Amino acid sequence: MKIEGTFSEKLAALRSRHAGLLNRRNEVDGRFYNGVYERYVHPVVTGEHAPIEWQYDLNPSTNPHLMARLPVHSAFNPGAIFWRGKYILCVRCEGVDRKSFFALVESDNGVDGFRFRDQPLQVPETDRPDTNLYDMRFTVHEDGYVYGIFCTERPHPEANGDVSAAEAQCGVIRSRDLEEWERLPDLVSPSSQQRNAVMHPEYVNGRYALYTRPQDGFIEATEDGGIGLGFVEDMAHPVIRDEIIIDRRAYHTVNEFKNGQGPAPIKTTRGWLHLCHGVRPTAAGMRYVLYLMVTDLTDPARVIAKPGGHFIAPWGDERVGDCGNVTFANGWIDREDGRVFIYYASSDTRCHVAMSTTERLVDYAFNTPPDGLSTRACVQQRWDLIERNLSLV
Amino acid sequence: MKIEGTFSEKLAALRSRHAGLLNRRNEVDGRFYNGVYERYVHPVVTGEHAPIEWQYDLNPSTNPHLMARLPVHSAFNPGAIFWRGKYILCVRCEGVDRKSFFALVESDNGVDGFRFRDQPLQVPETDRPDTNLYDMRFTVHEDGYVYGIFCTERPHPEANGDVSAAEAQCGVIRSRDLEEWERLPDLVSPSSQQRNAVMHPEYVNGRYALYTRPQDGFIEATEDGGIGLGFVEDMAHPVIRDEIIIDRRAYHTVNEFKNGQGPAPIKTTRGWLHLCHGVRPTAAGMRYVLYLMVTDLTDPARVIAKPGGHFIAPWGDERVGDCGNVTFANGWIDREDGRVFIYYASSDTRCHVAMSTTERLVDYAFNTPPDGLSTRACVQQRWDLIERNLSLV
Repeated sequence: MKIEGTFSEKLAALRSRHAGLLNRRNEVDGRFYNGVYERYVHPVVTGEHAPIEWQYDLNPSTNPHLMARLPVHSAFNPGAIFWRGKYILCVRCEGVDRKSFFALVESDNGVDGFRFRDQPLQVPETDRPDTNLYDMRFTVHEDGYVYGIFCTERPHPEANGDVSAAEAQCGVIRSRDLEEWERLPDLVSPSSQQRNAVMHPEYVNGRYALYTRPQDGFIEATEDGGIGLGFVEDMAHPVIRDEIIIDRRAYHTVNEFKNGQGPAPIKTTRGWLHLCHGVRPTAAGMRYVLYLMVTDLTDPARVIAKPGGHFIAPWGDERVGDCGNVTFANGWIDREDGRVFIYYASSDTRCHVAMSTTERLVDYAFNTPPDGLSTRACVQQRWDLIERNLSLV
Repeated sequence: MKIEGTFSEKLAALRSRHAGLLNRRNEVDGRFYNGVYERYVHPVVTGEHAPIEWQYDLNPSTNPHLMARLPVHSAFNPGAIFWRGKYILCVRCEGVDRKSFFALVESDNGVDGFRFRDQPLQVPETDRPDTNLYDMRFTVHEDGYVYGIFCTERPHPEANGDVSAAEAQCGVIRSRDLEEWERLPDLVSPSSQQRNAVMHPEYVNGRYALYTRPQDGFIEATEDGGIGLGFVEDMAHPVIRDEIIIDRRAYHTVNEFKNGQGPAPIKTTRGWLHLCHGVRPTAAGMRYVLYLMVTDLTDPARVIAKPGGHFIAPWGDERVGDCGNVTFANGWIDREDGRVFIYYASSDTRCHVAMSTTERLVDYAFNTPPDGLSTRACVQQRWDLIERNLSLV
């Protein structure tokens, strides 16, 4: 359908195209099978899903050509929460100006029909203005609040004229209704920069627990770094004094360059289920994949299962986007019926859902061999598997 | 169509396929709409458009298998000029050997039917041989010449065995007929290297004016750099003594890492319309997008409009190529009927056209909000837009 004709004809065509996109049904993509989760045919949210009113000046006298004045270029890295009967994503939208902002987008079934709420979120500031905000992690904490932790970027205070020198810290907001948000002070941790912190949903020994990633600078993880766990007395003044590294970077694994906690972990009878991202360098830049691990129910610093390799990697069209070769996740939803809606983004461009169950994810986590750490060990794992299979015949 | 059979059957099939490509009609791509410009379904020029005679030895006794002896691998970053009733692109062709060379390719309507002229350009040399030439910018100057400014790369004189150490400078040619080209001395500017210079089409206070980009080295722009403007007394000995930076690099914008003037600006009643490129780093390498700005008619050093964000970014298949995630432009043509043919290349691989008008581009430039430089300001712009739209109902 071409958008052409008079202003009102173009607007009608634009609305019709937009409605078609929002009403499009989604279904499991039969081309993909691994038994662990299902992929869906369409992304669940893209920049094109954003309301026309957010992008076009609809006044024919000030915008006679019906131009997009503030396009929403992309929508990715969604935080997720099931709230009052709705699947709600807190999407990282990006304008053509590169600035990210948050929008709440909701659906009745979690796989299609996602609608943007009326306006983008205007996140309250601390006394140090944010330049750019992104990657919201929601945690429904047993203290009664919904917390949101996100990254805030600002020019580096010691930039000395280097316009690319930036500082990443973790901003914190909380709410009781997802309507009114209170901004708390930024997280203080032993690391000079921090872009990847996530709250654990329960108290641990009476304190708040947060997953962190110690960083040396804006991009690099610390040399013996990984996913950290730290504790906070009071979220109104969130300070972590010590971090324990619970999942280290390791040579020739999916998290060689860096890794980080995705959304808050899901509690299962076998342990806390974690969805994480791992990064490794390639000749075409960094490759981001997702992996799973399980921590102990009583000691969340202890990893009790870590299946080898990636759990979700870019597939098909997911490989291509504003920053290619990336899958990233900071939101998932587990329902009472056991279904787990895994929201992930591809290549910094669009949001997808993958569907599984806690039962299948626990099976995957405990029954997938761990990374053998060498070709020899991985070939041996495969020999053993083949031998067991051949003995079945 | 398979290319098979005897030598002459294969050649006939090859010619038929090539003719099909050259005669393919182009049309507006209805999937894309932003009101500012239209995209077209097909690229206008690709490496496959290059004549068969440029690539194959057509003598069956010396090339019985009809092999491509000198393939034209890609065709991108076209300079552009409307000349004697033809839309002429000066395309950067690249052989499989990585060397770029220029070819003039012409069409009657500017959107399809592009044909290569008989031979690639053999650009005259200075007394310092060029290793590689690319990215031609044409300017029809009021002095009566057509100038072409391009980048010339040579091994760095202080390479000391580092085979990748290179020096970029701007070469200058001029012609009165696009047939005979005179090579002038390379541009001398305050910067040690220079790869992105473009001539302004009119004298400024009796001097030639050139847009530049100060660079610290082969790749990096200077720390407080951006698009410069310098003046030259005599193009037969082009020397710029001082540069004024008219559009600086800025943190968290589309031109954070570097930026540069595209083609020569277009004169409108409201100012000089500039098409520029901006570069920012991502985890998957550099991202090149295009943006617009307007400078004052009497003082070209003064930017009077700069809409926020990118104007053209890689879209769909454009995202992928020899150097992915790139849109680049160094040629556009404005016609007397107001149409503007924007020639841009995607991912260092192929040439496209986008269609607009000076009226729409000026509307876009003056009525799109400038970059708010922070998430807060950008969300406020969007709230204001939404509020105005809701008040229309």
